[in-house]
Amino acid sequence: MSELITPAEAAGRPAAADRIGLICHRYPDGDTVGSAYALCLALRRAGKRATVIGGDGIPAKYGFLTALADTEEFEPAFLCAVDVADVRLMEPDTAARYGDRVDLCIDHHGTNVQYARALLVQPEAAAAAIPMAQVIRTLGIAVDRDIAACLYTALATDTGCFKYSNVTPDALRLAADWMETGIDAAAINRRMFDTKSRAHIALEQMALAGIRYRWGGRCAVMTITREMIARSGADENDMGGFASLPRQIEGVWVGCTLREVDGGFKISIRTDGGIDAAAIGAQLGGGGHRAAAGCTVNAPADEAAEAIEAAILRQVPAIQD
Amino acid sequence: MSELITPAEAAGRPAAADRIGLICHRYPDGDTVGSAYALCLALRRAGKRATVIGGDGIPAKYGFLTALADTEEFEPAFLCAVDVADVRLMEPDTAARYGDRVDLCIDHHGTNVQYARALLVQPEAAAAAIPMAQVIRTLGIAVDRDIAACLYTALATDTGCFKYSNVTPDALRLAADWMETGIDAAAINRRMFDTKSRAHIALEQMALAGIRYRWGGRCAVMTITREMIARSGADENDMGGFASLPRQIEGVWVGCTLREVDGGFKISIRTDGGIDAAAIGAQLGGGGHRAAAGCTVNAPADEAAEAIEAAILRQVPAIQD
Repeated sequence: MSELITPAEAAGRPAAADRIGLICHRYPDGDTVGSAYALCLALRRAGKRATVIGGDGIPAKYGFLTALADTEEFEPAFLCAVDVADVRLMEPDTAARYGDRVDLCIDHHGTNVQYARALLVQPEAAAAAIPMAQVIRTLGIAVDRDIAACLYTALATDTGCFKYSNVTPDALRLAADWMETGIDAAAINRRMFDTKSRAHIALEQMALAGIRYRWGGRCAVMTITREMIARSGADENDMGGFASLPRQIEGVWVGCTLREVDGGFKISIRTDGGIDAAAIGAQLGGGGHRAAAGCTVNAPADEAAEAIEAAILRQVPAIQD
Repeated sequence: MSELITPAEAAGRPAAADRIGLICHRYPDGDTVGSAYALCLALRRAGKRATVIGGDGIPAKYGFLTALADTEEFEPAFLCAVDVADVRLMEPDTAARYGDRVDLCIDHHGTNVQYARALLVQPEAAAAAIPMAQVIRTLGIAVDRDIAACLYTALATDTGCFKYSNVTPDALRLAADWMETGIDAAAINRRMFDTKSRAHIALEQMALAGIRYRWGGRCAVMTITREMIARSGADENDMGGFASLPRQIEGVWVGCTLREVDGGFKISIRTDGGIDAAAIGAQLGGGGHRAAAGCTVNAPADEAAEAIEAAILRQVPAIQD
């Protein structure tokens, strides 16, 4: 179990240390990258040696953030994980090397497994950027344009550009303050939200061509096979957004995306929260949240689709009326 | 020419009148609908008779706003147009009946042609909702949950959910204030931004299947024929978003969408503003803004695509390097 600490206490720990290594989660997103680089910049401004561990491996999409703080080579004396709810969510190399001696974790996942010595967690915060901004304020470091770009990217990413139900009035006001520093928020948003690769577009076209509607369109099931991925030329960086696509279709109560994996299909289940997606996933050995859940079915595509449709019908018999 | 007035003056005009008719633009969007209904509600709270003219004809998508203020039948004694830059942008019936006697226009288009007797225009505002909020404040009417839902929808719509370059820190702070009233902003955003019809999805799939890349992917051209529209079952309400789609593909400098019309194709041209879309459109008799422009080419699809590609090449010879 971690010692649960306040933002002021969390600021005090790295401030009392040096050679600070910051750890992002694997498959990094804007929140883990932006919040870690914001802290890295703030610590450097405070005269500390700090670096993001494995920063060189962060996807090019975040290059405008990673360019703000070169990776430094040193053996860290203090380790801080950012937006990482579990050691198992770190890069395997990082987890093996540092996972059992993380001094501090700054996070916003209520599911944090408390692997770090000390934990600052705000489950109600839309992004790790929100507790991070409080830590930086306590460090006495002003949020300049570079730090603001990091924090804005982090918050915008985890709120779907201020679209989701996790947005609070105070989150919008923080974003407003960060915009005042002169960041080009629109350029960040274009890069984060309005850019799709050619491979993504090709894969989307193939997936949409095969979309299957059930029960008068109240359920939509989309399947992505390895053959489609290969044909489109997509890699892991091109795969964003597919899980939520079927649910976005008008009239759809439950949207499912099946993605081929070894031996079967990984299924993403999405609802608007009125129907419990986690309960549907749990029937097939999975789980998740009310609006977003998942499971894996070791069967060919048709059988996997039938299995998830049967699970939906058991959870929501009224869907067929 | 209109008398140019302040928000306080603009509030005084309907406050001194009664039987106030509010006019939206045709093909209504969230800003014209939300801002007009916000004013309608505020005027009614102030004891005035007010109605949105033609409100019954507003698309069902905005039903959660139109339900807040029933249409009233009366001969208006005072007419206020909202977010309507030109009489020609009104519904033809409304324009014919009221176009020459509009008392007040509240707008944010610098291109407003000043057809109303008095004009409150803020070209720097992201949405008509911003001057409208100032008018409502001057009326002394508190922004309650219903008015906030109208204003939030208006501002979110015209900023692409706070994504575009027209978002200012103050716009975010206004949105924060409106959220404090208890509106379900996430539900509004889902409805406005994350809902596509089945017909839209079907049409998107067909259009993506035929997308054509030129010059190493720096130009993408997508064509939507009448046959495709008919096959998908799409109507005018299903057509949003196609104009900007090709430009959103990674590496694309200029994105074009060709849509079949009588005798040829209407072409939408999109750039990130670095390349002048208006200059490209102007070569084919069209025009627009730096990042978004259009023209019409009276020719079959292949010839229309060749014409726009030639215009692009003349404007940006380096695109082929």
